[in-house]
Amino acid sequence: MRHITAADIQAFEKVYRLNLVNSLPGFKPANLVGTAAPDGTTNLAVFSSVLHLGSDPALLGMITRPTTVPRHTYSNLKASGCYTLNHVPEALAAQAHYTSANFPDEISEFDACGFTAEFRDNFPAPYVAESTLSIGLRLLEEHAISNGTVLLVGTVEHVYLRDDLLRPDGTLDLAAAGTAAISGLDGYHAVLPPVRFGYARVGQLPVAE
Amino acid sequence: MRHITAADIQAFEKVYRLNLVNSLPGFKPANLVGTAAPDGTTNLAVFSSVLHLGSDPALLGMITRPTTVPRHTYSNLKASGCYTLNHVPEALAAQAHYTSANFPDEISEFDACGFTAEFRDNFPAPYVAESTLSIGLRLLEEHAISNGTVLLVGTVEHVYLRDDLLRPDGTLDLAAAGTAAISGLDGYHAVLPPVRFGYARVGQLPVAE
Repeated sequence: MRHITAADIQAFEKVYRLNLVNSLPGFKPANLVGTAAPDGTTNLAVFSSVLHLGSDPALLGMITRPTTVPRHTYSNLKASGCYTLNHVPEALAAQAHYTSANFPDEISEFDACGFTAEFRDNFPAPYVAESTLSIGLRLLEEHAISNGTVLLVGTVEHVYLRDDLLRPDGTLDLAAAGTAAISGLDGYHAVLPPVRFGYARVGQLPVAE
Repeated sequence: MRHITAADIQAFEKVYRLNLVNSLPGFKPANLVGTAAPDGTTNLAVFSSVLHLGSDPALLGMITRPTTVPRHTYSNLKASGCYTLNHVPEALAAQAHYTSANFPDEISEFDACGFTAEFRDNFPAPYVAESTLSIGLRLLEEHAISNGTVLLVGTVEHVYLRDDLLRPDGTLDLAAAGTAAISGLDGYHAVLPPVRFGYARVGQLPVAE
């Protein structure tokens, strides 16, 4: 086994270090974050840092760097209080990754990258029409982390999904949804159907259902 | 498209709600968190909430509920200041999921679930010998979230990985590593090799490398 220390990581060339450390968590969720500015300009940015925080109430978190890219996402969601998460279809990975390019302020990544902005049920942030699963969230709280990043906590207000993705037990068939997983900064993966185990109980090694 | 509102989510039966909301982020990383109690008892617990926070210094976060399960992970890492993250091999998903069963205090999930605890380089938390990629972290800070969960931020001190997983550019070949992705509470997925796009630039739709 190769052993890499904190000192090694710090000594690595910057892009090498970014590639390595961004790969460490394992597979990450692939979401497009949709927002709108007060003047109506829409914004779309790919994020790999969305996570589950709680189910009742339904809370999701994501990490941003407010003083650097993607600043439009942050300023827009601060202004309106709302944002959308839209699963990245693996088939549209190139377009989703393109949202990370440094587009000028007046350009909407929806248009530039070939996605369709859709406003639904009077929610002030745009959804991605091409996503099979989209979520409308309202910003609840922010937590400043010592390295300058911020954990944004949002309350789930709306979920839109293709009917067949919802299993009878409430789980979602993300493989059938074509949702991508991300590794590192630029790897987009298709994912195979799961093995599922149910609730684990002592004395009984879980068996795939 | 099916539309589910916050009111619908709150009205759902509890397990249905847990299944749905835990599926919303998309594919999640699968890690086993290894810790040791002051008396030497080891603990192992599967987490799907690990995320990247920064590369310089290398910081990773994870979410825990300190007053509920898995309390051993939290009390152990508070006592020693250290914990390990170990990628779940998709082939050992059943054993990894079994760590979520409610084992008595004196039982180590390493033994009960068939994993090998390995102490390396005088680090006070045990690694999982069966993982192709393991990380040793030191707790840096905690952020209390309003729903009772806590974001634990850790500094990466050690990385151990199978030599062939490290690509020349610093990215990791997580598909070759056999690392699993998680959906919902109990779905474990094998993941296909990525398409990779490199750094995105305006005026150039990313092309798979």
